[in-house]
Amino acid sequence: MSLIEALHWRYATKRMNGGKIPRDTLDTILDAAHLAPSSYGLQPYSVLVIEDRALRERIRRTACDQPQVSECSHLLIFAAWAELNGRHVDELIALTATARGLDPRELEGYRQSLHAAVAGFATPAGRRDWAARQAYIALGTALTAAAAQRVDATPMEGFDPAELDALLGLERQGLRSVVLLALGYRDTTQDRLAGMAKVRWPRERVVVEWKGA
Amino acid sequence: MSLIEALHWRYATKRMNGGKIPRDTLDTILDAAHLAPSSYGLQPYSVLVIEDRALRERIRRTACDQPQVSECSHLLIFAAWAELNGRHVDELIALTATARGLDPRELEGYRQSLHAAVAGFATPAGRRDWAARQAYIALGTALTAAAAQRVDATPMEGFDPAELDALLGLERQGLRSVVLLALGYRDTTQDRLAGMAKVRWPRERVVVEWKGA
Repeated sequence: MSLIEALHWRYATKRMNGGKIPRDTLDTILDAAHLAPSSYGLQPYSVLVIEDRALRERIRRTACDQPQVSECSHLLIFAAWAELNGRHVDELIALTATARGLDPRELEGYRQSLHAAVAGFATPAGRRDWAARQAYIALGTALTAAAAQRVDATPMEGFDPAELDALLGLERQGLRSVVLLALGYRDTTQDRLAGMAKVRWPRERVVVEWKGA
Repeated sequence: MSLIEALHWRYATKRMNGGKIPRDTLDTILDAAHLAPSSYGLQPYSVLVIEDRALRERIRRTACDQPQVSECSHLLIFAAWAELNGRHVDELIALTATARGLDPRELEGYRQSLHAAVAGFATPAGRRDWAARQAYIALGTALTAAAAQRVDATPMEGFDPAELDALLGLERQGLRSVVLLALGYRDTTQDRLAGMAKVRWPRERVVVEWKGA
């Protein structure tokens, strides 16, 4: 099945059957999230992987009681860094030098431009929004990888971030939850949406071949 | 090549060779963007496809003079809706009813909850940020599809959205550019980054298997 067929196949699954994703399949999806690109390569987020059912039941209460939180195999929480500072930049430069066998001095100009970028956000809210957007790239990458693996994936914004952060103690870890992804297998007997036609705006409304302003 | 190998293969290409993407390959990437999920299925964005070289030269001037804007095959501009209102909701409900062969009255409860959601953003900035995040899901989906097709893809936040919007007259169309994606083929002779090791935080720093708070 092609990637496009897989994207047609997937849908925001509201009821899952509790089936467990094989470890190697899960790892493929998590690898994809890990490999997603981000602005400056800063990857300002973590992807928390929650398998424990009891904990997912508690999370469900912060997420409008949506059944897929319980019924999924694994729940991913995309949590953006609450802070971003020069230390992160210096860590990234050190990592880059090591990974590429470079002298860190060769990266000095780049280091300075990254410091300027990190210092340049007009507001903390703007910086947090930027970090969240990077997490959404990883979300898009992970859900595409899930579809390619025939794993159902339900992106969820319908939860209370403050409650969820408190439940998991994310603030202490410098994280803020921004979006969830339930991974598992559709329950075709219970999910009214299973088998329903996909709804998208007509392609030409979304994808606009530019002919001039 | 597996999807994970494809994601290892891709990188943020800074120099491209001007090669043209075959139409069916481009369509696959655009189909992926079109099929990307979004909150409530509202897809509050357009993906503008710019092939015209002269126009891309002008866009390059709004994008820190980055060469890949000229050298790519096609430049995608992800542009979020500037506004979101009840009319959009009613259009989506009508589309859903048609696509699924339902009586719109069956969707009345859903329609009301969508109206409440759309009216519920605390600020216009919050609503615009939400729309931008949805576009980032499509960005992640498109760049993953590009990698799977062996097409290089460079996500770009380094541009002046106000200048670009003015150049293309996007404001008149109710759109605001949020992120770019240059699609094309790497120029391995000119791009210092071609062939360099990928830099990512260690997987266990990004992907955290939750053991407890």
